[in-house]
Amino acid sequence: MQVFQYPDQTQWAALQQRAAAQEAQEIEQRVLGIFQDVRQRGDAALRDYAQQFDGVQLQDLRVTPEEITAAVAQVPAELQTAIRQAHANIWKFHASQRTEEKPVETMPGVTCWRRSVPVQRVGLYIPGGTAPLFSTLLMLGVPARLAGCPEVVLTTPPQKDGSVNSVILFTAQLLGISTIIKAGGAQAIAALTGGTDSVPAVDKIFGPGNRYVTAAKQLATRYGVAIDMPAGPSEVLVIADSSANPAFVAADLLSQAEHGPDSQVILVSDSMTVIEQTQAEIERQLATLPRAAVATQALTESRAILLRTPEDMLYFSNQYAPEHLILAVQHPEQLAEGVTSAGSVFLGHYTPEAAGDYASGTNHTLPTNGYARNYSGVSLDSFLKKITYQRITAEGLLNVGPVVETMAEAEGLSAHARAVTLRLEAVASQQQ
Amino acid sequence: MQVFQYPDQTQWAALQQRAAAQEAQEIEQRVLGIFQDVRQRGDAALRDYAQQFDGVQLQDLRVTPEEITAAVAQVPAELQTAIRQAHANIWKFHASQRTEEKPVETMPGVTCWRRSVPVQRVGLYIPGGTAPLFSTLLMLGVPARLAGCPEVVLTTPPQKDGSVNSVILFTAQLLGISTIIKAGGAQAIAALTGGTDSVPAVDKIFGPGNRYVTAAKQLATRYGVAIDMPAGPSEVLVIADSSANPAFVAADLLSQAEHGPDSQVILVSDSMTVIEQTQAEIERQLATLPRAAVATQALTESRAILLRTPEDMLYFSNQYAPEHLILAVQHPEQLAEGVTSAGSVFLGHYTPEAAGDYASGTNHTLPTNGYARNYSGVSLDSFLKKITYQRITAEGLLNVGPVVETMAEAEGLSAHARAVTLRLEAVASQQQ
Repeated sequence: MQVFQYPDQTQWAALQQRAAAQEAQEIEQRVLGIFQDVRQRGDAALRDYAQQFDGVQLQDLRVTPEEITAAVAQVPAELQTAIRQAHANIWKFHASQRTEEKPVETMPGVTCWRRSVPVQRVGLYIPGGTAPLFSTLLMLGVPARLAGCPEVVLTTPPQKDGSVNSVILFTAQLLGISTIIKAGGAQAIAALTGGTDSVPAVDKIFGPGNRYVTAAKQLATRYGVAIDMPAGPSEVLVIADSSANPAFVAADLLSQAEHGPDSQVILVSDSMTVIEQTQAEIERQLATLPRAAVATQALTESRAILLRTPEDMLYFSNQYAPEHLILAVQHPEQLAEGVTSAGSVFLGHYTPEAAGDYASGTNHTLPTNGYARNYSGVSLDSFLKKITYQRITAEGLLNVGPVVETMAEAEGLSAHARAVTLRLEAVASQQQ
Repeated sequence: MQVFQYPDQTQWAALQQRAAAQEAQEIEQRVLGIFQDVRQRGDAALRDYAQQFDGVQLQDLRVTPEEITAAVAQVPAELQTAIRQAHANIWKFHASQRTEEKPVETMPGVTCWRRSVPVQRVGLYIPGGTAPLFSTLLMLGVPARLAGCPEVVLTTPPQKDGSVNSVILFTAQLLGISTIIKAGGAQAIAALTGGTDSVPAVDKIFGPGNRYVTAAKQLATRYGVAIDMPAGPSEVLVIADSSANPAFVAADLLSQAEHGPDSQVILVSDSMTVIEQTQAEIERQLATLPRAAVATQALTESRAILLRTPEDMLYFSNQYAPEHLILAVQHPEQLAEGVTSAGSVFLGHYTPEAAGDYASGTNHTLPTNGYARNYSGVSLDSFLKKITYQRITAEGLLNVGPVVETMAEAEGLSAHARAVTLRLEAVASQQQ
């Protein structure tokens, strides 16, 4: 980690800088080609890409019920139990996000309300590879189910033997998701966008992925499909005061760093002792970490920043707008109240980010790259639309009508005014 | 209007087609140039564009308190009263969207909650021109205020004499918005994106505009700024049964058509009589409509579609996903329950769209171009982020910790597991 002691405020913006994304134009061009190919050739294109990128010849692109049954039998009982518990916790917290809004009479006879309606067709993308992210499937599948989305399509790349990872299939079965497509990368996103014989087109696409998947999701928005949020490398900012346990802080920083070489890791503290001891702990823990190579690379770009006060630390964090914010301080509630930009916040010394990544109940699909300034993480709301309704009675029209007439004429929109005037005349003639 | 009687379901998709947007590449290129110019030259660039596009030489880009006071005096008392009433209604309905979510204990000692935090800096763009949309300023300003956004910046193009429309200024004052910038078009969006000496940079940009403004908002998203939603021409779909009043239906269709030549207008009915009488009413009302030329042009592309049943009409509407849906039927509640995609819904014969455009209380910034499939209209939520929090006690860690360890190891993320293990060991040693 690079250490900065009491940097001047004029330097903070530089310290909050994320690594700039590399030139994306080449990736965009390749993704565009894949979209056109999938649009034209459909399933045949998906099979060709599975051959090319996943090294497997697929007949059926859909996972069969037999494959699911066989996969479930392979998942160890302890892991099944853990996933069920995580599912229960995530379900409980997301269910609490249901809102009940009563109709509001804004004027006598003028009633307005909102109705939550699920997005009808959603696509969930789950990456494959060395670490199959069944936890992400939980994080997306639970709110999709709670929202009541009628059609949920899961796409995930096939393994070398043509199967889908058994824990992914177990989790899908737990969620009641049966439309599972063996397709990964930009081609999966293209298929969800336009549809193929095997893959239903969807209205909104969720899920993480590499830079091709991210570029494909951005391209999908040009075809009228919505996406969960813009994506970037995962990141954590830890605010640690002198009460912090350096071993815990080091473990939290490392669990972010092991995600990938481009993970962003920042430690902010008002104690140089904590910074020094955390650095020593990182070295110690790295020695026995399986993914040490990845973590070491991420740490070369990471920063430890010594600041003077809790207020300074909070201000620095709000400017950075981290995906994950850990408040490893004695009185986290006070700081927590002042957070204006963060994806998810972890309070106190016994609340590791890992808990929220898997099982505390909060969602782990969160805004990165500073988007916590203007986006929320995935929640039940992400799978719902709120449609507004209104009903006006004859009495209500008498109340609100003249207001509308006056405003419409002032905006030069006479037909708007007349839509009210004609009705007011009808009410008047009926009341005579 | 073009009339289609009992079209086969295979033809519905064609009837639901919106007019394709014209080639946008040239607009994008010009907007990109404007962004670069504003980034480099700041206020000087804004002054040059005001000269070029608005025909006015500006010294101060910010509206002064004196200008606001002078403007307010010019607004007729009746219009002031109407705007105050609309403000009260919109405020009341949007205030009802506040939610209170209590902390949830997902397992003993594991507590999760969400906190609503306002987007810190928001920009509201209000077009100028012949019809200054002070109603849109209400629709954006009220939820921004309710959310508590600390910084609200209004940009709107100057009039030929260098002033800002007096009703816009009155409405801004009513909303307590004092940062008002004389800038329109793509250059205003560019200024809100990157900031200039006079214009604060913002986190999220709201508001309608022409194709340059729309392209500029899309470009802004590449610089990390969020926008309210993708924009397209305004549209209405009316479902009318034999109980409908053709004069009302015609007036509603015309109030959509007068917005612009590209407005989308669709009438769906199970009564050929209603369709025929509505057409006759349109002709009659057009004769005395100030904006008849615009409306006539929009109507050439509009469609009246005769279908057999209420179910067919609802299905057609849901597939089209209209911005505005008017249910001009005898029992609108039944149909209303079946709506899966629409921006805002108007129930019954005395509920014109114009009421929702101005003063019923619902928002009029709504998804167009089929985006009602996957987007909600602007609401209080549009100005808030929901940050998730969690706090875990020693007891909670004993409960959730083993679940996290098992799942993290199964995903191959050992540092995640260790962040829990280290803490569990500390808890165990303290309990001895």
